[in-house]
Amino acid sequence: MITRTEQEAARERAAEMLERAGIVARQVELEQIEVADFGLGELDESGVQILTLVDAERIAVKVLVLFPYQTEPEHKHPRIGDYPGKEETIRCQWGELYLYVPGEPTSQPIAFPAAHRRHTYTVWHEHILHPGDQFTFQPNTPHWFQGGPEGAVVWTFSTKAIDVEDIFTDPDVRRKTVIMDG
Amino acid sequence: MITRTEQEAARERAAEMLERAGIVARQVELEQIEVADFGLGELDESGVQILTLVDAERIAVKVLVLFPYQTEPEHKHPRIGDYPGKEETIRCQWGELYLYVPGEPTSQPIAFPAAHRRHTYTVWHEHILHPGDQFTFQPNTPHWFQGGPEGAVVWTFSTKAIDVEDIFTDPDVRRKTVIMDG
Repeated sequence: MITRTEQEAARERAAEMLERAGIVARQVELEQIEVADFGLGELDESGVQILTLVDAERIAVKVLVLFPYQTEPEHKHPRIGDYPGKEETIRCQWGELYLYVPGEPTSQPIAFPAAHRRHTYTVWHEHILHPGDQFTFQPNTPHWFQGGPEGAVVWTFSTKAIDVEDIFTDPDVRRKTVIMDG
Repeated sequence: MITRTEQEAARERAAEMLERAGIVARQVELEQIEVADFGLGELDESGVQILTLVDAERIAVKVLVLFPYQTEPEHKHPRIGDYPGKEETIRCQWGELYLYVPGEPTSQPIAFPAAHRRHTYTVWHEHILHPGDQFTFQPNTPHWFQGGPEGAVVWTFSTKAIDVEDIFTDPDVRRKTVIMDG
């Protein structure tokens, strides 16, 4: 749960970072930036700001803005009926991104999710993405990521996005953010 | 057919435009920019420079660079077996793009393909794309486009790209560019 005031402040901050990063977007797109707190009510630690550019029949293009050390919680994109699940490439445009995927756990990972949620993070193989670096996930691959000291601006290119079907490791996560007056 | 020298010059010119447009790419990606003359041997009039960022199982992301008034010839993306054909969104990042699709022909279109090829352009419904503007094609939709006075830098987000299967209206087009020494 976040307040409308918090939502608006996060949108403005995200829009400034997008501009600094060289992302070209129309005003109407920027006004619809999604501010997601994943129902955890601690946006600065667990959350992401999402600019949607393309949401077509078979492809989706979004730009994620992560504030400094903000974490998108661990999740995966499952098969749904005939749909084999989302194939997704994330590509760093600006800043630094700490990305975690299945594989040998990195001994001293840089990112630190909120301490009281750390048990809901199960994959610890680290990739550090700088501008121009990218990584492709096949469906059903758990992953999570955190912005660096200045945050990160990250493209996601994917097949059809059905966000509400994403499966999060943390049972407290609610994908749809509730916005309260205030 | 173009020479290796022409290819290299077009690559460098494209890389400069990409940088000016705020596209973030690694050196190894820039070195592989495809210079396509569509076999017509008149690159400045009919051609495109293509930076490939993602070429995954089910998605492709490329950035097209069009020099001033350079035209990508009319083509469409057909169904191939079980594959319903490429769904593609093009989005202008920089400059100005004149885009032509099926529909009511525009009475005074801005773009002008090379005069001796004009008969191979059959769709004349004009859209003018400025930075942040985009357009989505379903498979099998004929389309062509031309860069404006300063050229254009244009994203294409799509399902799997199988360029060699694209169908061009101009029977002289050869999708694979031949590079000659020199």
